[in-house]
Amino acid sequence: MTEIITLLTDFGVASTYPAQMKGVILQRSPDAVVVDMSHAVPRHDVHTAAFMLASAAPAFAEGTVHVAVVDPEVGGPRRVLAAEAGRHVYLAPDNGLLTLVAQRRLLLGGSVSESRVVAVENESFFRADVSSTFHGRDIFAPLAAALASGTAIDRLGPQVETIERFDVPLPEREENTIRGHVLYVDPFGNLVTNIAGETLMERDPSAVEIYVSGAVIRGLCRAYCDVAAGMLLAYVGSAGLMEVAVNRQSAALRLGAAIGTRLTVRLPSAS
Amino acid sequence: MTEIITLLTDFGVASTYPAQMKGVILQRSPDAVVVDMSHAVPRHDVHTAAFMLASAAPAFAEGTVHVAVVDPEVGGPRRVLAAEAGRHVYLAPDNGLLTLVAQRRLLLGGSVSESRVVAVENESFFRADVSSTFHGRDIFAPLAAALASGTAIDRLGPQVETIERFDVPLPEREENTIRGHVLYVDPFGNLVTNIAGETLMERDPSAVEIYVSGAVIRGLCRAYCDVAAGMLLAYVGSAGLMEVAVNRQSAALRLGAAIGTRLTVRLPSAS
Amino acid sequence: MTEIITLLTDFGVASTYPAQMKGVILQRSPDAVVVDMSHAVPRHDVHTAAFMLASAAPAFAEGTVHVAVVDPEVGGPRRVLAAEAGRHVYLAPDNGLLTLVAQRRLLLGGSVSESRVVAVENESFFRADVSSTFHGRDIFAPLAAALASGTAIDRLGPQVETIERFDVPLPEREENTIRGHVLYVDPFGNLVTNIAGETLMERDPSAVEIYVSGAVIRGLCRAYCDVAAGMLLAYVGSAGLMEVAVNRQSAALRLGAAIGTRLTVRLPSAS
Repeated sequence: MTEIITLLTDFGVASTYPAQMKGVILQRSPDAVVVDMSHAVPRHDVHTAAFMLASAAPAFAEGTVHVAVVDPEVGGPRRVLAAEAGRHVYLAPDNGLLTLVAQRRLLLGGSVSESRVVAVENESFFRADVSSTFHGRDIFAPLAAALASGTAIDRLGPQVETIERFDVPLPEREENTIRGHVLYVDPFGNLVTNIAGETLMERDPSAVEIYVSGAVIRGLCRAYCDVAAGMLLAYVGSAGLMEVAVNRQSAALRLGAAIGTRLTVRLPSAS
Repeated sequence: MTEIITLLTDFGVASTYPAQMKGVILQRSPDAVVVDMSHAVPRHDVHTAAFMLASAAPAFAEGTVHVAVVDPEVGGPRRVLAAEAGRHVYLAPDNGLLTLVAQRRLLLGGSVSESRVVAVENESFFRADVSSTFHGRDIFAPLAAALASGTAIDRLGPQVETIERFDVPLPEREENTIRGHVLYVDPFGNLVTNIAGETLMERDPSAVEIYVSGAVIRGLCRAYCDVAAGMLLAYVGSAGLMEVAVNRQSAALRLGAAIGTRLTVRLPSAS
Repeated sequence: MTEIITLLTDFGVASTYPAQMKGVILQRSPDAVVVDMSHAVPRHDVHTAAFMLASAAPAFAEGTVHVAVVDPEVGGPRRVLAAEAGRHVYLAPDNGLLTLVAQRRLLLGGSVSESRVVAVENESFFRADVSSTFHGRDIFAPLAAALASGTAIDRLGPQVETIERFDVPLPEREENTIRGHVLYVDPFGNLVTNIAGETLMERDPSAVEIYVSGAVIRGLCRAYCDVAAGMLLAYVGSAGLMEVAVNRQSAALRLGAAIGTRLTVRLPSAS
């Protein structure tokens, strides 16, 4: 079976830091296939990385090991976590990066997934000399190789009950009104919200109204090209969440919107 | 035999969209080797992507599957094409992306290559839930995995005779004068033209004259360093086409040139 | 055994040039695993590339083939070198790129590594048609495939005694004072110096003083987060060399520092 390891970091494409992680992984797990999730997370932006991780992981096969290193406190007392959730394995510093992996199913209206998390304490998998500034290479990469080769997360350290999470309120629903917020702004300026697409499909989607930053959008579209270039639209995006975009332009720029910007959705009355 | 799949998109390196395509490909074709052509095509720039695809594909082995997703009309009525040309396989939306793959041999002075194109209608290869905004992951990736695993393109849909093409006039030749245009501007500002290098080799290359944007270049060079830093030069580039560059600088900036900019070449009289 | 080939170029992520190199490599060495060191070396910046190569290579397994193409003189008379050093194999134009690979152990206080260098003259491994502007694809890629498949460097050409190097003075030590300089500025603006971390550990690290661009840093830290955001710090970095950084910001911007900027370190008196 192919062992897949994905890497998500804020190291940038101009550094050799991602390559050094791959060098270590391939030394210890020569058959692993390493896939770059992205190395262009805005520096230290744990919120953006948490969304990227939670939304991209489901495209991969069960058993994939996802390594996320956005780690401003590297070398400090923060813990390193290994987690199993939804039949995927995750490695990340304990700084909120796993918030949305844990919460994803909840956002999408299902039950919270079974998950198990350990705090890594077993240093026998680390590289011989661990630097204090590059745990991606010296701790995360060798751990990923071990997990991809079949090491159980329990061998890495004791199970923990609570991990760092940032606050991601669920949408608030009051009769026909849903209040949510922007969870992620993609590189094109599309706004991904915390409102599950399914919720909007309960009633006539063409009669839904979305209020955001002084603008009103009437009706859900299917595709960008349902509206003219330069026009606002709302639709259910590829992560199953409602998104707001401007066809061929940036909704973030148009609306001055960012992570946390609030939206209100008005559903038509039940018929 | 190694199955190679290349990916060319305008998704950017800051998104996880290319990674999600790879996740789907590796689920269905675990032994495939996925190579990034580039994910930094200027957004929605089908002309640039068409050149990148046609010029880079020949470096790959026969049988390689090339997936190109620059697709502003995603989710709309545009067709998805699968093509065989020059013993390579191509997947792309029907928006002009395959224009230069088909025309390449013509540009370079040979005969048009044998090619066969089908419009994809068989949805059995698609992912179970197809989003309307991310066909790269939900349609193109699983199709690529199927083709790399040996599925014939005929199983995907009916053969089509005409596809979308943008206009790429061939150079016009009148005695010793050739009129052409810029086909592609590379990231360094080098101008790749539609004039085949071979044409310029018929006569003494050192006596060729190139007129572009008010500048005159006399004689073809072999390498950038044949002229001083900051000087204009013309040469036969790595795609077999005449290029205009400025050593260590950008010809596009220097000349204010872009895709479509016209050039005139004057060949010396036949001796 | 897995054959690993790394690629370091200034071709940028927006071009297909790295992909074309991979296409050629995979044609000739289908089982090779190709890892991008980076393609975002600042254009023609041999000094930066030399550091990236020397600092990243040790993360890879013995036998890895490292290809570095930052090559402003491509097509000119400069030689192509193949080298063995520290049980790794290197391919690069003879323009200084291998300077730090050869000097690395010296910088770090050990003896110069055993190394052997040949000038490539055997054209039988080249592609059939060698362009004058893209030796990465036509010369370096097929050579890398040959070396990864076990070809000895001696088959490529005669051994050479001297290669191009740029001047990298070793730090000067005078009693308790060490004078060094900045060797590399990473994409985050961290300054990597030519001063080996070991040297600073001889005495009490908390009493070391670093003078750079008018600023004074007292004591070595272990991690960025040992100081408040926005504060200067010095530490031994992941390459084993002393670095100067600003927590969560850019030391290069703060100090106006660049490659070559001088630093003075004052060690405490021997106790």
